[in-house]
Amino acid sequence: MTALVKSAGVRVLKLSSAVNFRLNQSGETRTRSLRSFSMLMSPPSKAIVYEQQGSPDSVTRLVNLPPVEVRDNDVCVKMIAAPINPSDINRIEGVYPVRPPVPAVGGYEGVGEVYAVGSNVSALSPGDWVIPSPPSSGTWQTYVVKEESVWHKIDKSCPMEYAATITVNPLTALRMLEDFKPLASGDSVVQNGATSIVGQCVIQLARLRGISTINIIRDRPGSDEAKENLKALGADQVFSESHLNVKNGELPEPALGFNCVGGNAASLVLKFLREGGTMVTYGGMSKKPVTVSTTAFIFKGLELKGFWLQNWLSLGKVKECREMIDYLLGLARDGKLKYETELVPFDEFPVALDKALGKLGRQPKQVITF
Amino acid sequence: MTALVKSAGVRVLKLSSAVNFRLNQSGETRTRSLRSFSMLMSPPSKAIVYEQQGSPDSVTRLVNLPPVEVRDNDVCVKMIAAPINPSDINRIEGVYPVRPPVPAVGGYEGVGEVYAVGSNVSALSPGDWVIPSPPSSGTWQTYVVKEESVWHKIDKSCPMEYAATITVNPLTALRMLEDFKPLASGDSVVQNGATSIVGQCVIQLARLRGISTINIIRDRPGSDEAKENLKALGADQVFSESHLNVKNGELPEPALGFNCVGGNAASLVLKFLREGGTMVTYGGMSKKPVTVSTTAFIFKGLELKGFWLQNWLSLGKVKECREMIDYLLGLARDGKLKYETELVPFDEFPVALDKALGKLGRQPKQVITF
Repeated sequence: MTALVKSAGVRVLKLSSAVNFRLNQSGETRTRSLRSFSMLMSPPSKAIVYEQQGSPDSVTRLVNLPPVEVRDNDVCVKMIAAPINPSDINRIEGVYPVRPPVPAVGGYEGVGEVYAVGSNVSALSPGDWVIPSPPSSGTWQTYVVKEESVWHKIDKSCPMEYAATITVNPLTALRMLEDFKPLASGDSVVQNGATSIVGQCVIQLARLRGISTINIIRDRPGSDEAKENLKALGADQVFSESHLNVKNGELPEPALGFNCVGGNAASLVLKFLREGGTMVTYGGMSKKPVTVSTTAFIFKGLELKGFWLQNWLSLGKVKECREMIDYLLGLARDGKLKYETELVPFDEFPVALDKALGKLGRQPKQVITF
Repeated sequence: MTALVKSAGVRVLKLSSAVNFRLNQSGETRTRSLRSFSMLMSPPSKAIVYEQQGSPDSVTRLVNLPPVEVRDNDVCVKMIAAPINPSDINRIEGVYPVRPPVPAVGGYEGVGEVYAVGSNVSALSPGDWVIPSPPSSGTWQTYVVKEESVWHKIDKSCPMEYAATITVNPLTALRMLEDFKPLASGDSVVQNGATSIVGQCVIQLARLRGISTINIIRDRPGSDEAKENLKALGADQVFSESHLNVKNGELPEPALGFNCVGGNAASLVLKFLREGGTMVTYGGMSKKPVTVSTTAFIFKGLELKGFWLQNWLSLGKVKECREMIDYLLGLARDGKLKYETELVPFDEFPVALDKALGKLGRQPKQVITF
């Protein structure tokens, strides 16, 4: 807990020494000059912190964090909204291979408003909406201080629930459509887990390119409604797993498939693929492995790969990432990219977490508002 | 059976009309000019024929085939030797996706001596050793007549058992080392089924490039001897499946792995691979599928592909194919590429077939001699 203790020490200093603290209150910029070693400090922050890996509902707690220094190149952001993604849960559980050292603040993406900037920061100003891009851990707190380079200024015209969630799921869908096979208008793709946010984004982003989608959803009560919802988004064909005896007859056989379920649902994707096709695994909701026959590899020439957004982002493609984010935000603003979210006040984080953990049945994506 | 009947009709014609029939008997070329519509005919042939798909030991039989016409661009080859490969068996069983229409003569590769050539053939002469390259169905017969373009003249200095078997297995090993990952001296590859001929070729071809091999073999009596044999060929590490708790510690982690077994043996190959590695499946000896965890795809970034030589050969790469064959034959001639074969006289085909079918325990590759 060294970092927190150190911050607490700095906090005392701040109370009498903040300088060039450009606050976003009525647009007013207050400048105080008190001492030569004065420091710009963030407000105190409330954060969802975990001090050890484990079940998120037992290891996370709300912590009051003291102010931290906003250095010359830093930007202090007052968070507006941040989602609870499955990967956030996996990081807390410790099953994610890349995760911040504990103690850590949860969350990986979100949107906030610039609250204060360090003296060297010129491209961002208080009041700007920003997202960490590429995403960056620690978004489940009221004030986040990170270097200017972390933040990407976005258009405020995009609804905050989309701005908060635009990277982890929609960007995964976009990259998967771009990175594996050259697709042209008239082609098709197949996917399971089609009701997931990535799945819904795949449907809409494919449709914008003239690409048809074959969608496989799980058998459960309400699957008829789910089918209609996906068709309303632009899905061409929707099957539940048990109704897949009939094979796609109208659409061209897909060269690309997406799997976020595993088990039988992955086998169904493989079955739909055409010779030489590629299945990309990006999730394993059923917790079952992918099983492939020898002949699928040899005679059908199928290829199986994985996609991990965090790995793609680690390639240093900041510019590309931000361009795609702007594209996706524009689609969301224009109503061309839609998915369901539920906004939950920060105080009710434990309920949102329970919903995200699946304890209360199928729920929309939980987005915390601060 | 139309073709056979038709040939029989032609045969009658031949008896009184063969012209320009350059025979390889004492180097003598006999020319007879009898009629204006005279034809060059092959000798009658003995062949292993199947008239329907099924279990090879019940549907194949030895048939006397009448002479067939050797047209202007044809070459008549007196077969010397041809192997029984698993894919030959699969073609007869009907489980191979590309197979000749029945009735058909078995076999797909082999070596023979040119017996007679059509009037337009200039690059081949009686006495030359040739192999069908790319391979071509119907090598299990004493005389094969096919267009000149089918045949590739080879150096007679290579032992016939290697010439007969150089394509299906050694070329698979070579292509798999070339086609999937850029490998350099000092790299390593991992494979299961290492005692197979492809496996043995991988070991030797890799070693010639300075590439180490990690080899997994099945647990069975005699596995200690098998390990020593593979090490004598140049294998760096050899493990039997049940002794794989210890992971490779000395060699660089392989980026490329080969799987011809499936099931647990495939999982072991995946375990050895380094992040971003590729496993190529080219067989499924255990008849078990390949099972892969979601995390292997997403976090380890593994890719799974298949290799099918027949598919590669169908790409029209005749020149590349023949250059590689010459390279491999040179290695075999120089003792740098070795594997065990058993020569079996054509009359004993049923015994060779039983051995190839695994009815008599583990046996060397069966090569029929004519």
